Amino acid sequence: PEKDGLIHGVAAAELQAICTTALDARSGAYCPYSLFRVGAALLLHKEDAEGKKVLKGANIENASYPVGTCAERVAMGAAVFAGHKLGSFKAVGVATDMTEFCSPCGMCRQFLREFLSLDTPIFMFNKEGKFIVRTMGEILPLSFGPDVLPPKE
Amino acid sequence: PEKDGLIHGVAAAELQAICTTALDARSGAYCPYSLFRVGAALLLHKEDAEGKKVLKGANIENASYPVGTCAERVAMGAAVFAGHKLGSFKAVGVATDMTEFCSPCGMCRQFLREFLSLDTPIFMFNKEGKFIVRTMGEILPLSFGPDVLPPKE
Amino acid sequence: PEKDGLIHGVAAAELQAICTTALDARSGAYCPYSLFRVGAALLLHKEDAEGKKVLKGANIENASYPVGTCAERVAMGAAVFAGHKLGSFKAVGVATDMTEFCSPCGMCRQFLREFLSLDTPIFMFNKEGKFIVRTMGEILPLSFGPDVLPPKE
Amino acid sequence: PEKDGLIHGVAAAELQAICTTALDARSGAYCPYSLFRVGAALLLHKEDAEGKKVLKGANIENASYPVGTCAERVAMGAAVFAGHKLGSFKAVGVATDMTEFCSPCGMCRQFLREFLSLDTPIFMFNKEGKFIVRTMGEILPLSFGPDVLPPKE
Ligand SMILES: [Zn+2]
Ligand SMILES: [Zn+2]
Ligand SMILES: [Zn+2]
Ligand SMILES: [Zn+2]
Repeated sequence: PEKDGLIHGVAAAELQAICTTALDARSGAYCPYSLFRVGAALLLHKEDAEGKKVLKGANIENASYPVGTCAERVAMGAAVFAGHKLGSFKAVGVATDMTEFCSPCGMCRQFLREFLSLDTPIFMFNKEGKFIVRTMGEILPLSFGPDVLPPKE
Repeated sequence: PEKDGLIHGVAAAELQAICTTALDARSGAYCPYSLFRVGAALLLHKEDAEGKKVLKGANIENASYPVGTCAERVAMGAAVFAGHKLGSFKAVGVATDMTEFCSPCGMCRQFLREFLSLDTPIFMFNKEGKFIVRTMGEILPLSFGPDVLPPKE
Repeated sequence: PEKDGLIHGVAAAELQAICTTALDARSGAYCPYSLFRVGAALLLHKEDAEGKKVLKGANIENASYPVGTCAERVAMGAAVFAGHKLGSFKAVGVATDMTEFCSPCGMCRQFLREFLSLDTPIFMFNKEGKFIVRTMGEILPLSFGPDVLPPKE
Repeated sequence: PEKDGLIHGVAAAELQAICTTALDARSGAYCPYSLFRVGAALLLHKEDAEGKKVLKGANIENASYPVGTCAERVAMGAAVFAGHKLGSFKAVGVATDMTEFCSPCGMCRQFLREFLSLDTPIFMFNKEGKFIVRTMGEILPLSFGPDVLPPKE
């Protein structure tokens, strides 16, 4: 939903940054098996210690297909390792080389769910930068996260 | 094997860097389910564009256990995304909070195998920094990598 | 939606079979790490060669958490191996030991998506056999399956 | 090692059963993405309740490559669900359509490790039924299983 010139709370300049970053991130993909490049971008609520506002990743495949990992998990794995967590992320973007809009796979939706609030927007860009957008809660309804299987700490 | 004061080609100062980085990396773990922190370090043959010689990662878990990922894959996924590849890595280190030496799981061995040569040393540190070391080929014998399932590019 | 005494096309006796099977299947779980038993049931449109109308599975965990697998994938993996495929499945059921209704994780939704039509109902049972139900398309909206990444055959 | 006409404790007729089953199991593969069929066979120490002595499985792939699963895990997941466990398995076999001998991927080695003793033989068959054999401990040295990360039961 748009409001005050924002899309799900994301300003035009931020959306442009997500789009550019996700499209650029595709070049970091290692995908000799699928030949399907995917780029992911994570918009932070505020700049991190290194002055970065948007983090990124791409798919890294493996000769044993199930062992490879997707763009969204490479990006989010590194982001969480760097200290970001639930509450840090304002939006997510994914981009492919297709004309159609491609959504995160179910495994990535589950991985993202651990660190995003349900109203966080996920922008899905085609190769030209056009997009559709859904919230985390919309693409993984009835989901469970850290709240359901209580941590043991 | 030691030779000229090197262990598998790794100098004492480099080994110290791997050890310190792997132990430090544990603090980036998100492991509310297993409470088992793991840190991983990747020694590069030469500094990357950002002046880094050792890259790192930690385990990032998920409420759906199979969806989480290990330290070695977080580190290597980010490294490959950053442009490193087969030929870039001189050594790997992993560290836990245990007194025993803990090895990479089979899934991580397979993930690493895609980007390491078979003689790359993998140092396994206990919480005190003591280690055992094995090569990639030793911990995943008879393995298959990009050579066996030929890329389609 | 109910119609002619059917829920998403499933008759009362069939629903009872799904429920009983999913609840029973929990006893086959190997879950020493999460202590969280899950059972899954797959209702076929017609009996298979062995006279079975409902197939089943449970979660099988691993000391390396990401290597374990969920109930839904154990059940569906065996079913597809046995010759069932897109078009064979009339409904899916999952059951846990909780009072709340627990849904399939995102990874399992993606795995199921490959073999279910989007209007296939997925029944989520609590420990008492009460349920909520959603279709495949509802719990993994905007999903991609075999149609999007075209098979190479 | 051969002894008394046995190979790692497996008799000729048993080896023949493993070979035939693994080769046959390939036909159950769902692999439209890799076009790489794999069959797996699990030899039990004694017949199960259904009179089966050898269980089997094949790879079941997914449009999201990391979500798919390998032959060994389909076979072992179903076997453990059926009640088999550490101590039940006498040998494992895997077969492909290649002339070369293909080994289990690292992820499957880890999955199998949970339920096999370290001296269990794993036979790797080429398409003609010729094989090489290694024990569980040989293909996943320094591994960790249920003993290292203690179950919480
Ligand atoms: Zn994904
Ligand atoms: Zn691992
Ligand atoms: Zn699942
Ligand atoms: Zn495998």
